Amino acid sequence: MIVDCAFYEHGRRRAGELSVAEASRACRQDGAFVWLGLFEPGAEEFEAVTSEFGLHPLAVEDAINAHQRPKLEVYDETLLVVLKPVRYIDHDEVVEIGEIALFVNPEFVISVRHGRSSPLKQARQRLEQEPELAARGPGAVLYSIVDRIVGDYEPVVEGLTVDIQEVEEQVFSPGRHNPAERIYYLEREVLDFRRAVEPLAPAVERLATRRFDVVDPELQPYFRDVHDHMLRVNAQVDQFRDLLSTALGANLTQISVRQNEDMRRITAWVAIAAVPTAVAAIYGMNFDHMPELRYAWGYPLALASMVIVDLYLAYRFKKAKWF
Amino acid sequence: MIVDCAFYEHGRRRAGELSVAEASRACRQDGAFVWLGLFEPGAEEFEAVTSEFGLHPLAVEDAINAHQRPKLEVYDETLLVVLKPVRYIDHDEVVEIGEIALFVNPEFVISVRHGRSSPLKQARQRLEQEPELAARGPGAVLYSIVDRIVGDYEPVVEGLTVDIQEVEEQVFSPGRHNPAERIYYLEREVLDFRRAVEPLAPAVERLATRRFDVVDPELQPYFRDVHDHMLRVNAQVDQFRDLLSTALGANLTQISVRQNEDMRRITAWVAIAAVPTAVAAIYGMNFDHMPELRYAWGYPLALASMVIVDLYLAYRFKKAKWF
Amino acid sequence: MIVDCAFYEHGRRRAGELSVAEASRACRQDGAFVWLGLFEPGAEEFEAVTSEFGLHPLAVEDAINAHQRPKLEVYDETLLVVLKPVRYIDHDEVVEIGEIALFVNPEFVISVRHGRSSPLKQARQRLEQEPELAARGPGAVLYSIVDRIVGDYEPVVEGLTVDIQEVEEQVFSPGRHNPAERIYYLEREVLDFRRAVEPLAPAVERLATRRFDVVDPELQPYFRDVHDHMLRVNAQVDQFRDLLSTALGANLTQISVRQNEDMRRITAWVAIAAVPTAVAAIYGMNFDHMPELRYAWGYPLALASMVIVDLYLAYRFKKAKWF
Amino acid sequence: MIVDCAFYEHGRRRAGELSVAEASRACRQDGAFVWLGLFEPGAEEFEAVTSEFGLHPLAVEDAINAHQRPKLEVYDETLLVVLKPVRYIDHDEVVEIGEIALFVNPEFVISVRHGRSSPLKQARQRLEQEPELAARGPGAVLYSIVDRIVGDYEPVVEGLTVDIQEVEEQVFSPGRHNPAERIYYLEREVLDFRRAVEPLAPAVERLATRRFDVVDPELQPYFRDVHDHMLRVNAQVDQFRDLLSTALGANLTQISVRQNEDMRRITAWVAIAAVPTAVAAIYGMNFDHMPELRYAWGYPLALASMVIVDLYLAYRFKKAKWF
Amino acid sequence: MIVDCAFYEHGRRRAGELSVAEASRACRQDGAFVWLGLFEPGAEEFEAVTSEFGLHPLAVEDAINAHQRPKLEVYDETLLVVLKPVRYIDHDEVVEIGEIALFVNPEFVISVRHGRSSPLKQARQRLEQEPELAARGPGAVLYSIVDRIVGDYEPVVEGLTVDIQEVEEQVFSPGRHNPAERIYYLEREVLDFRRAVEPLAPAVERLATRRFDVVDPELQPYFRDVHDHMLRVNAQVDQFRDLLSTALGANLTQISVRQNEDMRRITAWVAIAAVPTAVAAIYGMNFDHMPELRYAWGYPLALASMVIVDLYLAYRFKKAKWF
Repeated sequence: MIVDCAFYEHGRRRAGELSVAEASRACRQDGAFVWLGLFEPGAEEFEAVTSEFGLHPLAVEDAINAHQRPKLEVYDETLLVVLKPVRYIDHDEVVEIGEIALFVNPEFVISVRHGRSSPLKQARQRLEQEPELAARGPGAVLYSIVDRIVGDYEPVVEGLTVDIQEVEEQVFSPGRHNPAERIYYLEREVLDFRRAVEPLAPAVERLATRRFDVVDPELQPYFRDVHDHMLRVNAQVDQFRDLLSTALGANLTQISVRQNEDMRRITAWVAIAAVPTAVAAIYGMNFDHMPELRYAWGYPLALASMVIVDLYLAYRFKKAKWF
Repeated sequence: MIVDCAFYEHGRRRAGELSVAEASRACRQDGAFVWLGLFEPGAEEFEAVTSEFGLHPLAVEDAINAHQRPKLEVYDETLLVVLKPVRYIDHDEVVEIGEIALFVNPEFVISVRHGRSSPLKQARQRLEQEPELAARGPGAVLYSIVDRIVGDYEPVVEGLTVDIQEVEEQVFSPGRHNPAERIYYLEREVLDFRRAVEPLAPAVERLATRRFDVVDPELQPYFRDVHDHMLRVNAQVDQFRDLLSTALGANLTQISVRQNEDMRRITAWVAIAAVPTAVAAIYGMNFDHMPELRYAWGYPLALASMVIVDLYLAYRFKKAKWF
Repeated sequence: MIVDCAFYEHGRRRAGELSVAEASRACRQDGAFVWLGLFEPGAEEFEAVTSEFGLHPLAVEDAINAHQRPKLEVYDETLLVVLKPVRYIDHDEVVEIGEIALFVNPEFVISVRHGRSSPLKQARQRLEQEPELAARGPGAVLYSIVDRIVGDYEPVVEGLTVDIQEVEEQVFSPGRHNPAERIYYLEREVLDFRRAVEPLAPAVERLATRRFDVVDPELQPYFRDVHDHMLRVNAQVDQFRDLLSTALGANLTQISVRQNEDMRRITAWVAIAAVPTAVAAIYGMNFDHMPELRYAWGYPLALASMVIVDLYLAYRFKKAKWF
Repeated sequence: MIVDCAFYEHGRRRAGELSVAEASRACRQDGAFVWLGLFEPGAEEFEAVTSEFGLHPLAVEDAINAHQRPKLEVYDETLLVVLKPVRYIDHDEVVEIGEIALFVNPEFVISVRHGRSSPLKQARQRLEQEPELAARGPGAVLYSIVDRIVGDYEPVVEGLTVDIQEVEEQVFSPGRHNPAERIYYLEREVLDFRRAVEPLAPAVERLATRRFDVVDPELQPYFRDVHDHMLRVNAQVDQFRDLLSTALGANLTQISVRQNEDMRRITAWVAIAAVPTAVAAIYGMNFDHMPELRYAWGYPLALASMVIVDLYLAYRFKKAKWF
Repeated sequence: MIVDCAFYEHGRRRAGELSVAEASRACRQDGAFVWLGLFEPGAEEFEAVTSEFGLHPLAVEDAINAHQRPKLEVYDETLLVVLKPVRYIDHDEVVEIGEIALFVNPEFVISVRHGRSSPLKQARQRLEQEPELAARGPGAVLYSIVDRIVGDYEPVVEGLTVDIQEVEEQVFSPGRHNPAERIYYLEREVLDFRRAVEPLAPAVERLATRRFDVVDPELQPYFRDVHDHMLRVNAQVDQFRDLLSTALGANLTQISVRQNEDMRRITAWVAIAAVPTAVAAIYGMNFDHMPELRYAWGYPLALASMVIVDLYLAYRFKKAKWF
């Protein structure tokens, strides 16, 4: 589905939408380029675009089939950049991962989006607000999209940070929480996030350090800035993994400790119940000569001795924190 | 055993099969090549092929003895490529790993297959359907086989993904599953799969980036595409290992928690059984002066007190989720 | 907020403060430079500085927004160095991490500080005490700040060392400590510290080995010395992680052992309580012909046998260290 | 001790043995070389060889003192190659590791062997059977020894594979095995094996890729083949370590599970024993008015109720698999 | 404190000691050098040496303050080498780590020693015994010191090996050892040892492979030999860590198994004590019609049945190895 087809001239978007054919002709002008936005295009639909703009069949295949790694590939003058926009769905503690393929050429940008999360609109708005950026051509479009996507990593990192803090509290709270399952699934989300994020860093580094026709040298510090941001996110993701793995180990320890506490509580109650039973059993013996049995105070004294011993035990257990 | 001996001229297969000697002569023509397919050939049988096509004895040895690593080796004009086709046998949760050795030369392709799983047939069919691909010569044969084999990784990855999800559910389900054995054997399969897959990536990268006589430069983006696919699979295999290792740890935790629950249940029942025993023991004492024993209501009251205390305990245990 | 604006001439600070505009003019002299110190400047406030000194907008953005990684970036003649001063708050076992961005140019140093911990004052004092150092220009300012910050790592390392030793003692003391939570949070602090420290090492190495206009070659051995110091800290941080991870595992073992001890104590008490109950139950039977019941010494003998068996058991348990 | 001193001329061994002095003179001829085999030579004994053949004192020291790492060192024209032949003693699950130092020079090969396992004899026989190989000079001797030693890794790998499979079965068998000790010692053997094997791979790679006077370029593919074999072994050794580490974790889980089963069995028996005791205690009370006590059927009914409740409990426990 | 000030001429030490000033003059002769040995010098004391020999202030600072990493730094013609001599104090299972800083220049060697362990004396003796080595100048002094220090690693490695073997035996012995604490502290010593050893290897490799004025090319194979020795030690240290980590895991398993055994013993005793109690409770009931109570053989039969059932249980538990 064609979502948008915009024509930029010297950094400003010309009003109205063009057809694909018009766009492909218009973009050959100097200082002009076209940004064609597609959403989950079918094979036939994309066929027209492909032939109009002369895209490499392999690149096209990568763009149509989602499930690519983030990457940067060079097909003659055209760059293929695959990006993974992410969104943190806090309610489910799930990182939603989309996919965007970009064809970037001195004359055009073609964006192919899969999945719901879309940072393209915001990138578009930024370009319209900063025409001096847009005037740097398709490389600036690429920058504004990559910058947006990497900026969107931040809320994911924050969401995961908060969830890990919650898990920490659960692990070490005195209550009987067992966040093992939550830790496991957070780890899985962190791993998924990492797979979406990590391979992009070297791609962006190439944009920052090597020469490409479509990337204005003045833009390179901007890509370096984005790259730096990615390294920061990667470092944090690695820390998440270390923390979750340690949390899993600590959780096992906490559970063991609680088991131990239950154990001691059992001991305490077994001891307390055993005292009256043993005393009573003794006075339940049928010996002929048990003088205590004849005393009027025998029974109350027996009961009192049970109570006193049990109270003493209870006091000791309380003091030793076995209750 | 010679399985097939096909002669390709300008991308089209000429009908009929040739003998090895005919093939070795025919392939010297311009724009022509031979694809000779062998299945677990014996030493003598392969001897004829070796001398006819002038293969290096070491390469021949590697091709006859299975149990090689995936690799790419250059013997003058001839490449030796060892590949590991894989197949996931879902029923047994086992990755079946075969072996294919390819001799690729501007004039011929000789494929030597070991084990059942064979992607060669499909590669052959693809070449016959896309003569413009076949017209690029033996390099295209190599590409179509590698592409097929790497494409076959996908169902293995999917099968493992599904099995790991099942294991996750078992680990965290309330039932008394202990998938430790399954986790262990899945890990072993993942490790086997990795050993079959990982060493191939740098070999394919060399095909994508360095110059070889048998590989048409136009084919290199195709190899790069396959390489990218492999990196994706490798990343997923690494994630499998991380997940399985975390799952093993989480499983231990879950089992500990269940142990703890049993523990508490024991405590509860011990307490409930101890109450009537202790009360009854008291009224079983033989003191002369135990006025309660004389009351008509003594016995029913004693029974009632047992029941009431036990019901209260049961209520408390229920509330604390010890039952 | 502008904290200080100092003008250095041939290594000596000229008395009095300059306005930003004066400073920007003054620093163009030979052998002179300006050090402008800012504290959490607002966007507008920084705007004036930016335009006066011609700073790159991206570098400015990095300096205003804290939460950067330590890094060294080159914008034409100006270096942007982001540093993370640290301070160990022993009471909370927390590593407090600040942020300082430095713009270093042959003519000026602009320092932008975030957070409380500030090593800038000490660096300033050192420069005033060693005019021959200050005479080497802005590179010397950079050195004295980096040296100060890296020197401040030392108390953090020492604080963590002490805390880890305390944890070790807790793990292996006979008392019922469970330092799992403390281990976890120490690990988190170590990871935070590492993230603040590790990325700086390659940046300082670049200052020590590559040529920069603002860094006098005579200063390079000083940067190498600082780099060496960082490697030492990094090695120690890695060791902290290994120790904490091993301590977590050992802690689980110790807790298991104590559980085992409780277990054995339970066994002991159960046995001791069971003896009188069983003996008493036997003599509580109602058989007509139980001769012992008739003897005058029957009762005292029964009691004595209970006591003797229990004392023997207690002696055995004591000897086997079950108590 | 001099074991053998053979003189090869154009690939064929000349009959008879030479003295060291004769050998050192004879080997200066074109197309001829000497292979001198020593077994744990003493310092004085080796002194003669050293001065006769002009070996470097450091190399000599390495050859006399065993406990070197596998390595390749170049002393002018002479290579020193240290190799670790291995042998798997299945009965003790121990990897026996020997040591062979080789001095390889265009004119001579001197082999110094320590320990029992010796692949030298087989290498010698192979050379005598393949004179065209021996005709390539001392490099061929080096190849045939290295090839033999690396070939001998195979049975070790197979032995370890079998033992690890046995351990797997023990871990997951229902019986009460605890193979923790076996896992630990297998891990130690795997680590020893790895230390003997891993450092050799880069040494052999150098023989396969760099130019040495003593190594005929035609031999290089053979060294590459050996190198490939080593990579295969290394990959398998890494997998052994992963498997053993996972097996140790899984073993702990299995033991925990069995503990849990014992736990539940305890619960079951405690419950079953508690029922008759509690019922009997009730009817052992001494209330005057307990009508059941007076009925002729009271006693059999009480016994029956005990049996019925216990049978019901036993049925429930059986169903829940607590027995 | 100046320990020794020796003057070497053509490899031979001239008798008598020189003052620092004499030494600094004497060493300017051809073929001569001075070795000045200092022990924990104070700042002022070292000042004289520094100015006399023209040492770089940073290098001096490194030499005075201990707690450096092992390293090699080049200050013009002078090398600064920091070394960590180690000594294993078997009684405390502690690796004692000292520090030696060496200034090596074509004209002099200045050694600055911290801590007790000192290999300098032995290095000095060796030089006096091998004048042909000493004749190679200060580089030979450096070699003899490094060789000595690295040689001293050997007893540490052996001491650790023995201690780890003892730990293994404790872990797997049937007795109730819990070597977790010992494992932890051994790990800490291994980590300390590693930090002292590992960074030296690349420094020594530089001495073996790069050109330095003070190192005679003929000495380079000697440094290579030392480097090789270090790699061997490093490999062993890595193995120590793997073994200790596996031992910690195995130890937890062994403790769990013993817990399980105690568990089963509890079960057994609970069952054995429950039998007489239950039987006795039954015959303690007060039913009017319990014919057994009237029989003369009732009581002995009841006792006999208790004993028989308990003996049977004991036999069963014995057979199942629960005792």
